[in-house]
Amino acid sequence: MKTTIAVLGAGSWGSVLASVLVQNGHQVRLWTRHPQQAAELNNQHTNQHYMGDYQYPPQLQTLTNLAAVLKNAEVVLFTVPTPAIRSVAEQVVPILHAQKACPLIVHASKGLEQQTHLRISEILTATIPAPYRQEIVALSGPSHAEEVARKDITLITAASTSLAAAQQVQRLFMNNYFRVYTNTDLIGVELGAAFKNVIALGAGALHGLGYGDDAKAALMTRGLAEISRLGVALGAQPLTFIGLSGVGDLIVTCTSIHSRNWRAGNQLGQGKKLTAVIKDMGMVIEGIKTCQSAYELARAQNIDMPITEAIYHVLYEQADIKQEITALMQREGKSESY
Amino acid sequence: MKTTIAVLGAGSWGSVLASVLVQNGHQVRLWTRHPQQAAELNNQHTNQHYMGDYQYPPQLQTLTNLAAVLKNAEVVLFTVPTPAIRSVAEQVVPILHAQKACPLIVHASKGLEQQTHLRISEILTATIPAPYRQEIVALSGPSHAEEVARKDITLITAASTSLAAAQQVQRLFMNNYFRVYTNTDLIGVELGAAFKNVIALGAGALHGLGYGDDAKAALMTRGLAEISRLGVALGAQPLTFIGLSGVGDLIVTCTSIHSRNWRAGNQLGQGKKLTAVIKDMGMVIEGIKTCQSAYELARAQNIDMPITEAIYHVLYEQADIKQEITALMQREGKSESY
Repeated sequence: MKTTIAVLGAGSWGSVLASVLVQNGHQVRLWTRHPQQAAELNNQHTNQHYMGDYQYPPQLQTLTNLAAVLKNAEVVLFTVPTPAIRSVAEQVVPILHAQKACPLIVHASKGLEQQTHLRISEILTATIPAPYRQEIVALSGPSHAEEVARKDITLITAASTSLAAAQQVQRLFMNNYFRVYTNTDLIGVELGAAFKNVIALGAGALHGLGYGDDAKAALMTRGLAEISRLGVALGAQPLTFIGLSGVGDLIVTCTSIHSRNWRAGNQLGQGKKLTAVIKDMGMVIEGIKTCQSAYELARAQNIDMPITEAIYHVLYEQADIKQEITALMQREGKSESY
Repeated sequence: MKTTIAVLGAGSWGSVLASVLVQNGHQVRLWTRHPQQAAELNNQHTNQHYMGDYQYPPQLQTLTNLAAVLKNAEVVLFTVPTPAIRSVAEQVVPILHAQKACPLIVHASKGLEQQTHLRISEILTATIPAPYRQEIVALSGPSHAEEVARKDITLITAASTSLAAAQQVQRLFMNNYFRVYTNTDLIGVELGAAFKNVIALGAGALHGLGYGDDAKAALMTRGLAEISRLGVALGAQPLTFIGLSGVGDLIVTCTSIHSRNWRAGNQLGQGKKLTAVIKDMGMVIEGIKTCQSAYELARAQNIDMPITEAIYHVLYEQADIKQEITALMQREGKSESY
């Protein structure tokens, strides 16, 4: 059934998800703040800065006017970076009020709000009052925009406390190369998506320091254990962490050259300064901010997170990365317990 | 404390484990059937066919006489391929009887016995009567001989139903780059080690067929779920599958070019015939035989294992690999459940 969908955020992931939705026969309007980017998408059907020569479907409309994008939208998909979620949601509310709209809310962002440590769906719940929205669904899993764009097979999770809402999102996105599974553990899906970026920084750092595949697999395994421990303490279901949004996303983020967080860790491991890494990347590195949240949450919950702590010491306390990572990997051997 | 250790099998893994034990100060004798290989190891301190130019410590003694290797051994480490475990154990028994010996038994092999589907420790239990041995310990985890040889950090599991025996093995092997964790779920550790090779064939096949990182991460995630299901049905603890010997070994086997099973799957994906793949590899591809065991065990236990079944159809029923794998990845989206 043809649905009108507003996609907020025209980075690589948002624009490619919009493209999938157009291919599935929906009416899709994409929002960006940048008039030049909108013009490029509407006229050349490209989004060079993010997606190189990838050709978007001509039916995709890109606009800078948020009210026009939201008009008659039955579904609103947030894909802006985590630090922008709250402010964009705040801009959306008066428009929904004026339009007497009540859309389904979906987001495909990964991270936690700084200071408050709120999950994305919690930020959206806090900013968009219930009369102006239906349920909130998170889309998460091992997915690179580049691979979805070329119609490689991708399996992903639609998570919501409402199974019906998750199934609605599943039907919107599902096609022969984009396979959507439902999950009702919204907390676990969002926390896995956020915390795995911290472990990816560590895996990248190991690579940058010259360690091999054994060390990386071990770090990913122990990393999965520690993010699961914290997740469960915060209300997640343990099995979610061995699903697509948990170990699946962890694997792809820690082993693929497409991952920004991995690349940032790799550069840190090679001895590059943090400020230079952030400057050169030119895109948001979610793991750096999420590391601070994870570190503070772990302390508050009294959870042992040696990898997150080591990365935190490097990022925020000028610890030597080689010393921290080597000490981490050489911690006294003990029983494998979770 | 200096321990006398017999290592049976001088392939890459056995010979490098022997090397680690020598470096840790133990007296180690290595057994091979091949006089030329023994001479090369004793004189040039190399094992060219398996380990290229890697230099073994000169204190390592390599012998073709099994009784001489076993003499006064307090620990016997089996590292021969799975199909040879039973026959080597049968050769060991009369020697242990004659020597009035009762060593600790360790193995570092991965697979199941064909036909019987016995785990390695079960084969050893069935062939070596209790008076001639102490406990049995399995050594397993994400570990490439090549990386251990160059002293990259590796984390591994020593598993036994007896924690004391696992700790004894931990003390023998532990040093600053080879980190050993104990685990008492021997069933889970051995099954994870065996079944993961089947998933690695699938990951390699996806790569050979041209799929990307998203598809591989998804296959690994769903693969972990299905081998955990079967493992739990066979008596394993579920958490073992998210440990070093489970997801850790799965990751390294599915993402590293060092993995034979992955390489075999990759060649199958590229369209090479199974007989040619086996011939060209020149080393045992455990996953091919394990696939048959896993398939039969899953049927007997009534466990859904779509990835294992797809690989089985390709290996044993001449199914088209592209059709099988594509159909597998496009199965109807549903809830993520375990």
